Amino acid sequence: MNTSTDTASLADTPVLHQRDARGVHTLILNSPKSFNVLSEAVLSELQGQLDVIAADGDARALVIAAEGKAFCAGHDLKQMKANPRLGYYQALFAQCSKMMLSILKLPVPVIARVQGLATAAGCQLVAQCDLAVAVDTARFGVNGIDVGLFCATPSVPLVRNMQPKQAMEMLVTGGFITAAEAQARGLVNRVVPADRLDAAVDELVAAILSKPREAIAAGKDLFYRQRELGIEAAYQLAGQAMACNMMLDVAQEGVQAFIDKRAPAWRQVL
Amino acid sequence: MNTSTDTASLADTPVLHQRDARGVHTLILNSPKSFNVLSEAVLSELQGQLDVIAADGDARALVIAAEGKAFCAGHDLKQMKANPRLGYYQALFAQCSKMMLSILKLPVPVIARVQGLATAAGCQLVAQCDLAVAVDTARFGVNGIDVGLFCATPSVPLVRNMQPKQAMEMLVTGGFITAAEAQARGLVNRVVPADRLDAAVDELVAAILSKPREAIAAGKDLFYRQRELGIEAAYQLAGQAMACNMMLDVAQEGVQAFIDKRAPAWRQVL
Amino acid sequence: MNTSTDTASLADTPVLHQRDARGVHTLILNSPKSFNVLSEAVLSELQGQLDVIAADGDARALVIAAEGKAFCAGHDLKQMKANPRLGYYQALFAQCSKMMLSILKLPVPVIARVQGLATAAGCQLVAQCDLAVAVDTARFGVNGIDVGLFCATPSVPLVRNMQPKQAMEMLVTGGFITAAEAQARGLVNRVVPADRLDAAVDELVAAILSKPREAIAAGKDLFYRQRELGIEAAYQLAGQAMACNMMLDVAQEGVQAFIDKRAPAWRQVL
Repeated sequence: MNTSTDTASLADTPVLHQRDARGVHTLILNSPKSFNVLSEAVLSELQGQLDVIAADGDARALVIAAEGKAFCAGHDLKQMKANPRLGYYQALFAQCSKMMLSILKLPVPVIARVQGLATAAGCQLVAQCDLAVAVDTARFGVNGIDVGLFCATPSVPLVRNMQPKQAMEMLVTGGFITAAEAQARGLVNRVVPADRLDAAVDELVAAILSKPREAIAAGKDLFYRQRELGIEAAYQLAGQAMACNMMLDVAQEGVQAFIDKRAPAWRQVL
Repeated sequence: MNTSTDTASLADTPVLHQRDARGVHTLILNSPKSFNVLSEAVLSELQGQLDVIAADGDARALVIAAEGKAFCAGHDLKQMKANPRLGYYQALFAQCSKMMLSILKLPVPVIARVQGLATAAGCQLVAQCDLAVAVDTARFGVNGIDVGLFCATPSVPLVRNMQPKQAMEMLVTGGFITAAEAQARGLVNRVVPADRLDAAVDELVAAILSKPREAIAAGKDLFYRQRELGIEAAYQLAGQAMACNMMLDVAQEGVQAFIDKRAPAWRQVL
Repeated sequence: MNTSTDTASLADTPVLHQRDARGVHTLILNSPKSFNVLSEAVLSELQGQLDVIAADGDARALVIAAEGKAFCAGHDLKQMKANPRLGYYQALFAQCSKMMLSILKLPVPVIARVQGLATAAGCQLVAQCDLAVAVDTARFGVNGIDVGLFCATPSVPLVRNMQPKQAMEMLVTGGFITAAEAQARGLVNRVVPADRLDAAVDELVAAILSKPREAIAAGKDLFYRQRELGIEAAYQLAGQAMACNMMLDVAQEGVQAFIDKRAPAWRQVL
């Protein structure tokens, strides 16, 4: 990220938050020296920012990025070791899971911008995002098992992003996969050289910005809900969602514009 | 399709229906000028034909094909715009979902023969079929979002045919994938040059015809049912299905023929 | 397998069982002349051995291998034909499903070592294992339909290891896929030349041996449980599992070792 200049004064802030005039939010993990571990403070900061973004009625997209060589190395093991209590760990994983589910529930698409290594809960973060773009040198692992800690919570979105044997091998061997392998499996959408990373993220953002916010918000919500249902219930829910979507002004205008062979009025706004 | 000659008199029929002596049905979307959109009339026609085929005790397979450059461009936006009422849209999507589920419930395998572009509910139609063969120039998209209408119902079979980030990208960006990409993800079974499209479909049909109808009907039903269950319940259901299958004459004869190193008697019939 | 020498006296034993000093169990299907079919006797033998391994508190991994050209050709059709009763078939498939679920429930990773053809319940066996390594000449099919018997129980793990159209094609056509195709879909983890098969299996085993048994046992159990839940319930269960895992001595020591930049004490044991 080319944010180090304008955020130099925030060097001690663990999560940087930017919002541009278009409603595109960016959260930047900013503890590069500790490989952007998800300490309590970072998780709390992320949760706070996600709540703010959720309340921004003009938000359009969220990019989760990171400073330094690693994208995110997972939980803060030092902090965890300093608090060897079941209650502490339960609260910590509940906090982290809540944050991850806030990404799923956010009414705008969330894109992981993976500029480096993503391990354990860092790999989980990528898996939990709606979309992901990775640099071709990035690697992905859920290697908690190397220290005797099976990546249980990371396995939740992981097995929902690739086939189970592929996930199981990573979980029990601690082995890493390349960005190309991650793409072939479905864990990331696009893999690009480092100098094209921002362009590739921007391309996805631009595509999202050219659609109406309401339709994407309702659609994302429906997508994850219907996925958990049997197919008949899924169709019922999706049919209702689509009928409601058609009643929106943006859809009525969009369809009319299509018939008129012109751009929808709402597309000019951007 | 080489059907334009013999069906010339049916040029104004939105869905052509053929059945050969082997019990192979073909439904041909026949509104090439409107890119084979699924208007109310077409949906109703498809539903009627699917009901007829479901009642044909000698049916063996169904091929869903299309005339013209596009396979199917999804819903009829003009018709939808002309009826801006929630109740209308609810009924429309219920009608479409019912038709899609009729494909799933049909006791014979349904093969999509994709000779061109498949978009929105057209892409859904491909996803909902049991099998799909596509020409190498075909492209697939769920781009309702371009007009402000998130492809909610198409997302139902889509996310059951590829990984979620792959589906989500298509849904929120409106982007298209190639036939090769569709095959790599699992959305289509085979991709061939245009001049081999019918041969590739026929190959699947011939393989299906060489098996007993009852076993395939029960198997297809079991397949989709067990997929929605937890694995223990899935095994219980599948075990019952398989035991019942073994009691069929065709299985008893098939297994005896295997032991005798000869073709089963039922294979001669075809 | 290079086991023919030391197990020559056991030539009439349908399933060979080995256990090395490290706790690595190997079950070898040993009816090469009948392509290692899963007769009642073999299923019963496998169940017995799986129960023994499940009770071995020092077990670390299980490799399922086979003698001869075929890995496993599925059920024993001759035996099935000799018992044409619904009750017999119900009991047989219940017995087989129980054995398959015992693999899933075993507290150590189960690796299929696929040295040849895997068909019907033989392909199911590969799919049901946690991990699989295949020789590059191996082929996979669920071709019961060729004798009029839809591979219903094999379809249970199959559709949980690849996309549904890929599984459906195999089920209704009886067609085979290559080892490379199996890997691309997710059915096997690694594909190697025959002379590297043991090395590739050993590599996975060695990686598993370098992790603590308790963490892997709890993790494997959690993995399959959470996969069947909605994502919120999955996160709740996984969070609890991870908190409990962190309270284990092996995790406390592993994390401390990570902080100290040394190998965990438990890794020396091996």
